[in-house]
Amino acid sequence: MSEAPTACLLIIGDEILSGRTQDANLNFLGERLGALGIRLKECRVIPDVPSVIVETLNTCRALYTYVFTTGGIGPTHDDITTACVAEAFGRKVVRHPEAVRRLVNYYGHEPNAARLKMAEVPDGPDVDLIDNGVSIAPGFRIANVYVMAGIPKIAQAMFEALAPTLRRGDPMLSNHVDAVVREGDIAAELTDIQNRYPHVSVGSYPFTSDGKHATSIVARSTDKAAIIAVLAEVEALMRAKGGTPIMGTLL
Amino acid sequence: MSEAPTACLLIIGDEILSGRTQDANLNFLGERLGALGIRLKECRVIPDVPSVIVETLNTCRALYTYVFTTGGIGPTHDDITTACVAEAFGRKVVRHPEAVRRLVNYYGHEPNAARLKMAEVPDGPDVDLIDNGVSIAPGFRIANVYVMAGIPKIAQAMFEALAPTLRRGDPMLSNHVDAVVREGDIAAELTDIQNRYPHVSVGSYPFTSDGKHATSIVARSTDKAAIIAVLAEVEALMRAKGGTPIMGTLL
Repeated sequence: MSEAPTACLLIIGDEILSGRTQDANLNFLGERLGALGIRLKECRVIPDVPSVIVETLNTCRALYTYVFTTGGIGPTHDDITTACVAEAFGRKVVRHPEAVRRLVNYYGHEPNAARLKMAEVPDGPDVDLIDNGVSIAPGFRIANVYVMAGIPKIAQAMFEALAPTLRRGDPMLSNHVDAVVREGDIAAELTDIQNRYPHVSVGSYPFTSDGKHATSIVARSTDKAAIIAVLAEVEALMRAKGGTPIMGTLL
Repeated sequence: MSEAPTACLLIIGDEILSGRTQDANLNFLGERLGALGIRLKECRVIPDVPSVIVETLNTCRALYTYVFTTGGIGPTHDDITTACVAEAFGRKVVRHPEAVRRLVNYYGHEPNAARLKMAEVPDGPDVDLIDNGVSIAPGFRIANVYVMAGIPKIAQAMFEALAPTLRRGDPMLSNHVDAVVREGDIAAELTDIQNRYPHVSVGSYPFTSDGKHATSIVARSTDKAAIIAVLAEVEALMRAKGGTPIMGTLL
């Protein structure tokens, strides 16, 4: 088993912390990175404050193989991500000729100064544009940092464009088995199962089904056979406790 | 204007980072804390790894007036938040007599060892239970850290139970005005407005309305009159650019 790359997501934006906007990028990236064998280890949601963005980015890019950011790359005064990323790397901000060309082509004339901000990237040989088929404004990569839009549809298109360039690990596989059984009634046996399969992450998530206490047991691992073995044991356990388990599909 | 208390949310759980579960607690807390005049400055989503939980908690509780955690306080092996919080504070884990009494009362007999874990709290005089009307298992406060359930309905009930004990600042008010105007067409004037109202946070959020490019301008401040003044200017600006602005309600 190769050492899997790691990742951190930085969600930049007052609108997420204020509760105005429900984030959807963490959920998307968590699932997609897992499928690519990249371990999303942390997500931080931070406000539109330059010093916080610079410091957090510098902390996280040293800790993880990849850092993804979402938010703050539009044309308005509150779009400060590009300037902050450049500052974090000690680089100047420059206009990327190809990004300018696309904006001019799209608008049919030289865009105004605000829109030209969307063609700005940090200077340096390790900077590439990140395309997307949804909007004309690109994201960019600098070193191990991928700067994406906040709007989920655009962030997702950017991620799919950059995904082929990422180093992959063994994909994280998962499956689950659910039953109308209270997690407190299977907890001791679950601990035993987890202890015997240390390379499988066994999670227990209570929910209610038609007003009854139910539990979903999730097994995650790069080892498909181990997931199948764990969930077979959980299934038998749930049945022994009076439940009628429903097995999910291994993904 | 009094100095507003600050807060950080720690979302603890592999299931959020893996994309299995869409978090709903950040959105709720962001809105509720804003209304109470408490500034949510950061949110971190971290995995079920003890050393990460301990270290992150110790970092964040030193930085902010309040830290709220969600997730990991159930009866199963993957519920490790209480043990980690105790370790972060250098305390032992003890059974809280009142929490035990409630569990015994609910089940009609002494609960099994797994369920008794839900009555555990760190030791110390600065520890209180956090009630909720949904589940029998309480959360707890230790010093400036509030440990809540991950399930949104329970987390919300716990927050409402503890909210009256929090120190409040001036409530953060907000309103917005929307129009079918491209943000790139109003960006320069918006910058000017933001510069003239430095104590109002002016955010610009593009969206599409019936396939047309539209923009929502949000003004946030503790100063109601300033919000009204800012959005009146934005409304006039949008109209001058050919839009038909729709003003929201000041909250």
